Amino acid sequence: MWTEQNNALYAKFSFQNFVQAFGFMTQIAILAEKMDHHPKWTNVYNQVEIWLTTHDANHTITEKDRNLAAQIDKIFKNS
Amino acid sequence: MWTEQNNALYAKFSFQNFVQAFGFMTQIAILAEKMDHHPKWTNVYNQVEIWLTTHDANHTITEKDRNLAAQIDKIFKNS
Amino acid sequence: MWTEQNNALYAKFSFQNFVQAFGFMTQIAILAEKMDHHPKWTNVYNQVEIWLTTHDANHTITEKDRNLAAQIDKIFKNS
Amino acid sequence: MWTEQNNALYAKFSFQNFVQAFGFMTQIAILAEKMDHHPKWTNVYNQVEIWLTTHDANHTITEKDRNLAAQIDKIFKNS
Repeated sequence: MWTEQNNALYAKFSFQNFVQAFGFMTQIAILAEKMDHHPKWTNVYNQVEIWLTTHDANHTITEKDRNLAAQIDKIFKNS
Repeated sequence: MWTEQNNALYAKFSFQNFVQAFGFMTQIAILAEKMDHHPKWTNVYNQVEIWLTTHDANHTITEKDRNLAAQIDKIFKNS
Repeated sequence: MWTEQNNALYAKFSFQNFVQAFGFMTQIAILAEKMDHHPKWTNVYNQVEIWLTTHDANHTITEKDRNLAAQIDKIFKNS
Repeated sequence: MWTEQNNALYAKFSFQNFVQAFGFMTQIAILAEKMDHHPKWTNVYNQVEIWLTTHDANHTITEKDRNLAAQIDKIFKNS
């Protein structure tokens, strides 16, 4: 699901509607704050695009990004 | 899933954790505001209890409550 | 704002409408998960009631509850 | 606050932290679904960028966009 794009992990998720998409985002928001690692993300209606990169590591992909990506995948599977 | 309790539709939902429970609540919040019909609900960790009643109809169960209950069931099935 | 009620810190918050109330709840949800300390809370439209107690400490009020209450007050002041 | 950018109303909002930013987004999400008019928006930590345009009107700025922008401004003032 995730690809590398300009030193970031990137994935795009599609849902049936906006409500489902925002329910997904809310779960990610809670986990991201807990991990103290926040995504760049864009939403339009039922689409959510996410970019994960580590600013503290000179804008590269680190273990933090891979961990958050794995958590996001779990949330998506349960959506 | 829903039972009648003191002139309200009542149901209790359980999740794997708080994050899933709150993702469920957020989806309901969006729909409830859209339907202009809001639940009474209580959350503790992975548990969400919901009571639906219609204040404008002298605190009885109406079509509005049954509609919101059906929407909540759909969200739950996709959680 | 907070009083003691059955071994829990209790407070009731009122907002202009449901949207504000749920925005407040979302912020608390994010912080509660981060602190790994979750409230019991009930919402009806623009009202949010919160009970804070520590299950691991034999259902008494502890520093964890006082910390979360202080965070909730900060969020409320910015609402 | 809002400027026109490629046939969309655009604004950028800054908050003290991620929690406040996501509380703001949640309130907008609820109203957007109610108005059946959804933003394109991007969030990174405490920053929220929003683009409003009307797809049904050949991707131009309409009254729907101006209404949602006004609602967003109200939410921001109360944040």
